[in-house]
Amino acid sequence: MTHWIRFRDTDGRIGFGTLDPHSGRVVQHDGAMFDRPRPTDVSFAAADLALLAPCEPSKIVALWNNYYALSQKLDKAPPKHPLFLIKPPMSVIGPLESIRHPKSYHGKIAYEGELGIVIGKRVSDASVEEAEAAIFGYTCVNDVTAIELLQEDPNFAQWCRSKGFDTFSCLGPHIVSADAFDWRGAHVVTTVEGVERQNYPLDDMIFSPAQQVSLLSHDMTLMPGDVIACGTSIGVGSIKDGARVDVSIEGIGTLSNVLDA
Amino acid sequence: MTHWIRFRDTDGRIGFGTLDPHSGRVVQHDGAMFDRPRPTDVSFAAADLALLAPCEPSKIVALWNNYYALSQKLDKAPPKHPLFLIKPPMSVIGPLESIRHPKSYHGKIAYEGELGIVIGKRVSDASVEEAEAAIFGYTCVNDVTAIELLQEDPNFAQWCRSKGFDTFSCLGPHIVSADAFDWRGAHVVTTVEGVERQNYPLDDMIFSPAQQVSLLSHDMTLMPGDVIACGTSIGVGSIKDGARVDVSIEGIGTLSNVLDA
Repeated sequence: MTHWIRFRDTDGRIGFGTLDPHSGRVVQHDGAMFDRPRPTDVSFAAADLALLAPCEPSKIVALWNNYYALSQKLDKAPPKHPLFLIKPPMSVIGPLESIRHPKSYHGKIAYEGELGIVIGKRVSDASVEEAEAAIFGYTCVNDVTAIELLQEDPNFAQWCRSKGFDTFSCLGPHIVSADAFDWRGAHVVTTVEGVERQNYPLDDMIFSPAQQVSLLSHDMTLMPGDVIACGTSIGVGSIKDGARVDVSIEGIGTLSNVLDA
Repeated sequence: MTHWIRFRDTDGRIGFGTLDPHSGRVVQHDGAMFDRPRPTDVSFAAADLALLAPCEPSKIVALWNNYYALSQKLDKAPPKHPLFLIKPPMSVIGPLESIRHPKSYHGKIAYEGELGIVIGKRVSDASVEEAEAAIFGYTCVNDVTAIELLQEDPNFAQWCRSKGFDTFSCLGPHIVSADAFDWRGAHVVTTVEGVERQNYPLDDMIFSPAQQVSLLSHDMTLMPGDVIACGTSIGVGSIKDGARVDVSIEGIGTLSNVLDA
């Protein structure tokens, strides 16, 4: 099991490496996370580092209606192909960074706790087997939404706008390597100010991670570091300014972010 | 008036510079196109260079329903805020590169000739005046669409999927600097195999370029090299495999791409 992190050290330098969750030690690596990373002889105490988003996606592909429980609650048929929008790179923040309430928007902000798939290899038109091999690992996602914008215009659902604001894609705290994470056995648990609001099993997914990567790779080339946000299930709600949202997935960890006013 | 291009030279090296459209000479530049580019003493005949997409956007923000003529034809009210989707970086191709018919899709492919705004400065929450100053220049866009996917699912309009395929954002042939392009006097003319299919005036736009940049900069930070595709007007249609589409804007140039089978 490898936990990959990106970090800023006490000198302000950005690096990446592996975290031993038991000892709390981080071994810095050279090269690129997705292309033959090499351990260096530099190590840190994790407590001395500021964690950053664990990867720098060129795009986030965010799914809608990918859990049977939610599709039943919404009374929408399960889709035949992943339904998605694209979130831009500038929407990404890491653990403990603040979600910013957009200056131009005074409505409700919603959390959506999700599993994130991190792509490790450039992949196009992949079979399910090839797709499985292209998954580097998994992380937690809070897919934040300016929910009142979504249906503001009667002619056009504003998915990209309502979910694309800076700081609206919280990722982290680290990436757990694919070989070490059994998504079938895990739940996504979202709490707001410590109160549980979502707790749903990943095995209720309509498209499995490998199916998602395969099908989406027929729509566009997926690049190393790209993230697929697997969609959320029931229990979505709004966040008050100043409140903390924790997205926890057993086997990965807990992603915490506060909504700033 | 400056025409900025990106190119691959005969040795396969990628560079950028300015094109004199009268002499056909290209002066290579050093540094970055959007950050103090410096002319070098290297020059080329444009005919010896392969043009690339003139910039490398981190995202393309593509507008829908931004012309009065189209909004009337569709019988949709003009929007109060730009309605948009996001196209990923891998969708970009340059002049004379081929649009690829996706292997997984056997339906019609549509052209949409559009004006493209190229951002020159990082910009957030900008006034219209600040937005105007952040516009580096303009280019032509063919916003290609796998049109039969758009409404394939009754519950979710698949804007990002139908427009996000690799090769579906044709940009070029160059960027004309903002000071040298009077969009109010120009038309977008789209031809397919030489037959005119679109010819619409840019001054029919609902949101002007500076208004678009200002309003969108309240939704997300725009980065140097990002492109806003200003939306199309009437005359959209489909492209047969093997057909050439030319998008021409007087004062900018002609962007040509063929749809490969």
